[in-house]
Amino acid sequence: MTERVTLAQGNGGRRMRELIAQVFVTAFGAAAPDTRVDAAIVGDPGGPLVLTTDGFTVQPLEFPGGDLGALAVHGSLNDLAVAGAEPRYLTLGVILEEGFEIEVLRRLVASFAREAAAANVRLVAGDTKVVPRGHGGGAYFTVTAAGVLARPGLTPAAPRPGDRLLVSGPLGDHGVAVMLAREDFGMSGDVRSDCAPVLGLCRALWPLPGLRFTRDPTRGGLAGVTHEIATACGHGIRLVDDSIPIRDQTRVICEMLGFDALTLACEGRVIAVVACDEAPRALRRWRNLPSGRDAAIIGTIVAGASTVVLETPLGGERIIEELDDDPLPRIC
Amino acid sequence: MTERVTLAQGNGGRRMRELIAQVFVTAFGAAAPDTRVDAAIVGDPGGPLVLTTDGFTVQPLEFPGGDLGALAVHGSLNDLAVAGAEPRYLTLGVILEEGFEIEVLRRLVASFAREAAAANVRLVAGDTKVVPRGHGGGAYFTVTAAGVLARPGLTPAAPRPGDRLLVSGPLGDHGVAVMLAREDFGMSGDVRSDCAPVLGLCRALWPLPGLRFTRDPTRGGLAGVTHEIATACGHGIRLVDDSIPIRDQTRVICEMLGFDALTLACEGRVIAVVACDEAPRALRRWRNLPSGRDAAIIGTIVAGASTVVLETPLGGERIIEELDDDPLPRIC
Repeated sequence: MTERVTLAQGNGGRRMRELIAQVFVTAFGAAAPDTRVDAAIVGDPGGPLVLTTDGFTVQPLEFPGGDLGALAVHGSLNDLAVAGAEPRYLTLGVILEEGFEIEVLRRLVASFAREAAAANVRLVAGDTKVVPRGHGGGAYFTVTAAGVLARPGLTPAAPRPGDRLLVSGPLGDHGVAVMLAREDFGMSGDVRSDCAPVLGLCRALWPLPGLRFTRDPTRGGLAGVTHEIATACGHGIRLVDDSIPIRDQTRVICEMLGFDALTLACEGRVIAVVACDEAPRALRRWRNLPSGRDAAIIGTIVAGASTVVLETPLGGERIIEELDDDPLPRIC
Repeated sequence: MTERVTLAQGNGGRRMRELIAQVFVTAFGAAAPDTRVDAAIVGDPGGPLVLTTDGFTVQPLEFPGGDLGALAVHGSLNDLAVAGAEPRYLTLGVILEEGFEIEVLRRLVASFAREAAAANVRLVAGDTKVVPRGHGGGAYFTVTAAGVLARPGLTPAAPRPGDRLLVSGPLGDHGVAVMLAREDFGMSGDVRSDCAPVLGLCRALWPLPGLRFTRDPTRGGLAGVTHEIATACGHGIRLVDDSIPIRDQTRVICEMLGFDALTLACEGRVIAVVACDEAPRALRRWRNLPSGRDAAIIGTIVAGASTVVLETPLGGERIIEELDDDPLPRIC
C-alpha cells in the first residue's frame, strides 16, 4: 500500500478495499465490522434506544493525553452516558485528505479500536471518503453512538432551586492541552487532556432519586453547560469560585493566554445537578472512584432570572457569560 | 447573523446556538430535534436494529437532480432499504468550512429536511463543527441511519448459480451529472442525477422468497457491486451488455470522457439477485413502479471462478474489473 492517502482509496474500488482491510480491519481484528455489507443488523437493543452524533476535527490530531481516535470514542460514548444510557454500538465516518500519512491514520484507528474495546462497545458500521489535498485537515472522524436508556428522567429542565451543582474533576485540561500542542503560542507544559470515559461516574449517580441532570462540559465548557441548565430550568445558578477545581498549571496558562478556564472544554468530566439533601452522598460516590477523586460541589440552583453568577473569594460577583465571538475551534 | 460561516459558530457558545437555531431548527420546523440534549431518546425500535453510516463530500454541492442534502438522506436511507430495513431515524454531523455561504447552507439543510420528511424519517441528533478556511470543501455531511429489519436473509453470500441479476433503471446518471456539473470538462448536458429513494423498489421485492440480495450501485458502480457479490458467494457473474439500461446521453458522455458507465455511481438504483424462476415476477413488480419503469434482467450467476464477464453484442466477452487506481472521488 502507499505511504500516503490517495484519491483512488476513496473510489469504491480495489484501492479502497485495500485501505479498509489493511488499516481498519487490521486495527479492529476480530471486532471489525463485516465490510461486505452497507448496513449492520445489530439485533434488538432490548430497551429504549438512545442516539447521539458528533464530528471530531481536533487539531493537532495527537496531543498529550489523547488523539483524534480516543477523543472520538470518549466524546461520543460520554454523550450517551450523561444522557443516562449504557452504550452499545458505534459507527465511524472518516473523511481523509489526499496525502495524509497512512502511518498516522493507523495510529488514530488503533487508538479508536483500543478505546472502543475497553468500553466494551462494538463498531458496527463505517465509511471512508477521500477529499483532495487542501480540502481537509488530514482526518475528520464523525461518530454516532447508540445505547440503551438505563436512567430515565435526566433533563436540563429538571433542576429546582436549592439543588447543588457538582463537577467530577478539574476543568479545562483538555482545552489547554490541545492549545499548547498546537504550538501557536510558543509554550509547552505538562498539562494532559482529561480525555476519558465518564460512564463509571454516571453509573455511580444513577441510583440516586435526587439526580436531576448530568452533562459533560465539552465545547463551551462549564459556562456553556450552566447556561444551558439555567435556560432550560428557568432558574439562576450561583457558582463559588473557590470551590471549582482547576489545576494550578491550567490556571496559570489560562491567565497567561487570556483564556477563561470556565469556557474551556473537558472530555472526561461530568457536571451533575443533584437535590440538596443527596449532594453529599453524590460527592462521596464520585470521590470513591479514581476519576472522581477531585470532585467538588461548586454551586447551587437559585430562584430568579436564568443568569449564571460566580461568587469570587473576596465577596464579589461576576456574571458568567457563555462564549460569544471567541473562535476556539477544533478542540474536539 | 453573518452571511458566511465564522469560526465562532463552532465554539459551543452563543454564535453556535444562533446558527443551529436559525439554519437547522428553522429548516426542520416541528420536526427539529431537541437541541437542548446531547443524545436523543428515540424509544424502543420494536425489532432488530439496523445501522449504517456514510460521509458525503460531493463536489459541487448542488448539481442537476440533487444536492448534498438530498444525497445525504437518500444515500443513507437507501443503504438501509437494500439491507432489508425500514428506516426510522437519522443523525447528521456537519463539518463547515469558515467562509462558507450561509445561504447555500440553508438550501442544503432545507433539502435534507424536505427529503427526510418525504421519507417519513426523523432527524434525532445533530452536530456542527467549523474548520478554518482551507481545511474543508465548504460543507461535509456525515449521516447515520437507523432502521428496523423487515426482510431478513439478504446477503451477498446467498446467490446461487442460475440466479438472475436485475437492475431497477439506467446506470451512471448520478456520476455523469456530478462530473458535468463540475465544469472541469467544459461540457454540459441534460443528464440529471438519479438521486432518489429506493425503499419502494426494495419493498416490492421483499415478499419474494427467491430474493437473495439487493444493493445500490453507488461508489464503484455495477462493477463494484458485481465483484462484491461474486467474491462473497464464490460464483461467477455473466452480464449481457445489450440488456444493461444506460441512457444514450450518458453513454455518449462516457465514451467522450473515457469513463466506463459500469463503474459510475448511481444514487437511486437497485441491483437485485433473484432466483431464476422468480426473476420475471420481480421484473414485473419493478416495472409497475415509476422508479422501476426501465428495470431489466441484466445477467446470471454462474458456477465457477468469482469473475465478472460482460457478453458483448457481437458475441465477444470482456472481463469487468472493479475500479483500481482511478481517482473518481467526491461523487458522493
